[in-house]
Amino acid sequence: MEFKIIAKDKKSKARVGLLQTKSGSIETPFFMPVCTQTTVKYISSHDLQEMGAKAVISNALVLSLRPGQNLIKKFGGIGKFMRYQGVVFTDSGGFQMYNKSIYEKSDENGVLFKNPISGGKVYMTPEDDMKLQIDLNSDVAMCLDSMPLIEVSKEDVAEAVRKTGMWAIKCKIAHDELQKNIPKNKRQLLFGICQGGIHKDLRELSARHFAGIDFDGYAIGGLALGEEKEDEYAMIELAKNVLPEDKPIYLMGAGNPVELIEAISRGCDIFDSRFPTRNARNGSLFSSKGTVRLMNNSNRHSNEPIDSECKCFVCKTYTRAYLRHLLDIKDGNGLRLASYHNLYFLQDLMRKAREAIKKGKFTEFKKDFINKYKE
Amino acid sequence: MEFKIIAKDKKSKARVGLLQTKSGSIETPFFMPVCTQTTVKYISSHDLQEMGAKAVISNALVLSLRPGQNLIKKFGGIGKFMRYQGVVFTDSGGFQMYNKSIYEKSDENGVLFKNPISGGKVYMTPEDDMKLQIDLNSDVAMCLDSMPLIEVSKEDVAEAVRKTGMWAIKCKIAHDELQKNIPKNKRQLLFGICQGGIHKDLRELSARHFAGIDFDGYAIGGLALGEEKEDEYAMIELAKNVLPEDKPIYLMGAGNPVELIEAISRGCDIFDSRFPTRNARNGSLFSSKGTVRLMNNSNRHSNEPIDSECKCFVCKTYTRAYLRHLLDIKDGNGLRLASYHNLYFLQDLMRKAREAIKKGKFTEFKKDFINKYKE
Repeated sequence: MEFKIIAKDKKSKARVGLLQTKSGSIETPFFMPVCTQTTVKYISSHDLQEMGAKAVISNALVLSLRPGQNLIKKFGGIGKFMRYQGVVFTDSGGFQMYNKSIYEKSDENGVLFKNPISGGKVYMTPEDDMKLQIDLNSDVAMCLDSMPLIEVSKEDVAEAVRKTGMWAIKCKIAHDELQKNIPKNKRQLLFGICQGGIHKDLRELSARHFAGIDFDGYAIGGLALGEEKEDEYAMIELAKNVLPEDKPIYLMGAGNPVELIEAISRGCDIFDSRFPTRNARNGSLFSSKGTVRLMNNSNRHSNEPIDSECKCFVCKTYTRAYLRHLLDIKDGNGLRLASYHNLYFLQDLMRKAREAIKKGKFTEFKKDFINKYKE
Repeated sequence: MEFKIIAKDKKSKARVGLLQTKSGSIETPFFMPVCTQTTVKYISSHDLQEMGAKAVISNALVLSLRPGQNLIKKFGGIGKFMRYQGVVFTDSGGFQMYNKSIYEKSDENGVLFKNPISGGKVYMTPEDDMKLQIDLNSDVAMCLDSMPLIEVSKEDVAEAVRKTGMWAIKCKIAHDELQKNIPKNKRQLLFGICQGGIHKDLRELSARHFAGIDFDGYAIGGLALGEEKEDEYAMIELAKNVLPEDKPIYLMGAGNPVELIEAISRGCDIFDSRFPTRNARNGSLFSSKGTVRLMNNSNRHSNEPIDSECKCFVCKTYTRAYLRHLLDIKDGNGLRLASYHNLYFLQDLMRKAREAIKKGKFTEFKKDFINKYKE
């Protein structure tokens, strides 16, 4: 059993689980910093360990382009290559359909990517992608999915749902075959990803399709892309009603504190987003009282930490005035410190959420957090 | 007494001293990371503390442009602003005559700088510069000097020597006046800077001029700019023969490991340079066996650390292959790790040099180090 639910909230769908992987167990809900190219931007593996980030997500396609899967395979996989002692997820590359410098087109059998480094083309089938993720030796692989852009027509979303579903079956078969001789406790897990945008019928169709295949976990993809929060939450509820209750649910791309708490209360267990680090680099910092816009003039002389309630080394040490100056001169040290704080904030939020669920106080915790955050 | 010599090598001019400042004492010889804008590029104050960097050098003129001396003064000075527990030197801004985006021209009474941020002009007299450095509350201020570019004529160097000498007297008078009511142990120290390029007569003239003024320490400026090493060492010897034996000697701008050891053996005590961090960012890394060019193809698959003898956290953790990949993708984490290693290497080199001098084994240490470094 790869996922064990150890505590359930009575008034919501929030739960604490234990996800068991070949690199160790990790309590859900958790948030994964995005580690696309075997590093979180500006953040070292030591930093990740120190902030308590017990899982990260990398990107199989991007790594296959540089430094190449052979190099990482030779070093024993992503975790060993980057000297990270934790759980490593790999996204397939489906998300890179958002990245116009890489994505070219897709058809029935796979996706055509450009290699912006060599200038060459890579055609990736679901089967190739499974082989790639096994080579990268991540603990959890994601199915190759077709991720529609937010602005596309319903027809295009339907087409993405169809392709994603078809590829998922191919992924599952290939992945099982590749690992058939590997003992169960040494196996990479495989998560499916349902799509469907914010179209109820398509989302439900996709979720039902995935629920029918025995994946180790299920992701809800194609959300947290700028749609209305109400639509996002409605889609989560819909997918969650269909997907297996005893499997971990991974809401891809969500990284706003309130959004995370809302998703946890709707039964999501796993999260990732580049939002916290990208925002940090732009001076948008999390605090228990809501977003701090560091570059605002009011912070120019501020002797206060980013968040007086935060226990991270950045908040325990540096003033807003100093951090603001570092971002103002665009120094890498400032970019690191800001990124560290935002990631720590989410790790801490997940710790608090798990604790509240275990103590049967999640609803109060959620209410208090959101009220204070919106102040 | 601000400087006490506690050990002397018998076969060379190397010595270990104790420099006493209002922020504490520090053993010489030491190397200062360059912290121009209240941060070493990519390196936090925690990092500095952890690597044992007990002094840094910032730049008064640059800070006056951004974030402004009033802000830093309000926070209690550079050290408190950046939360650094160590000794802070400030350079006057003379070095910025090398920086064409800032330097405009100089005359008898001071220097005209452009403010690249506001577009305005700043005319700085030696007296203004002393006031500025006191506002910034550094532990050691440097006189305003006129630093000739390496390629200028002997006439221009002579003119720089003349101006630097004249300004030095003005600095000394203004600095004494500004601190006359401050108890001696709370006072900022002031170092003079002799110039003269690689012209023996001008260098000697300038050094003699400075030796005649009772500064707390003496810097040798205008070297380590690309001249031949023989010329540099000859100028150090010449200046050292003239400058007071019982005062700390600061060779400005030197940061190559062999150069540092050669300068220590010639009686220099204090160093700074942007060379280690700039080189690190370009993949040029120090090791006990000489420079490692990380981007060389031979390091692509290397499982080795940068320097197997180095005890820094980067060398204890990461492979050349991983660090090379991080520099290849130009990630800030890689730039930090490489910078950290190069700075640690020099801190460690200084520790070893001090130890060797104390044990009366500096000559052997120097020989061994240089032989191995050139391998």
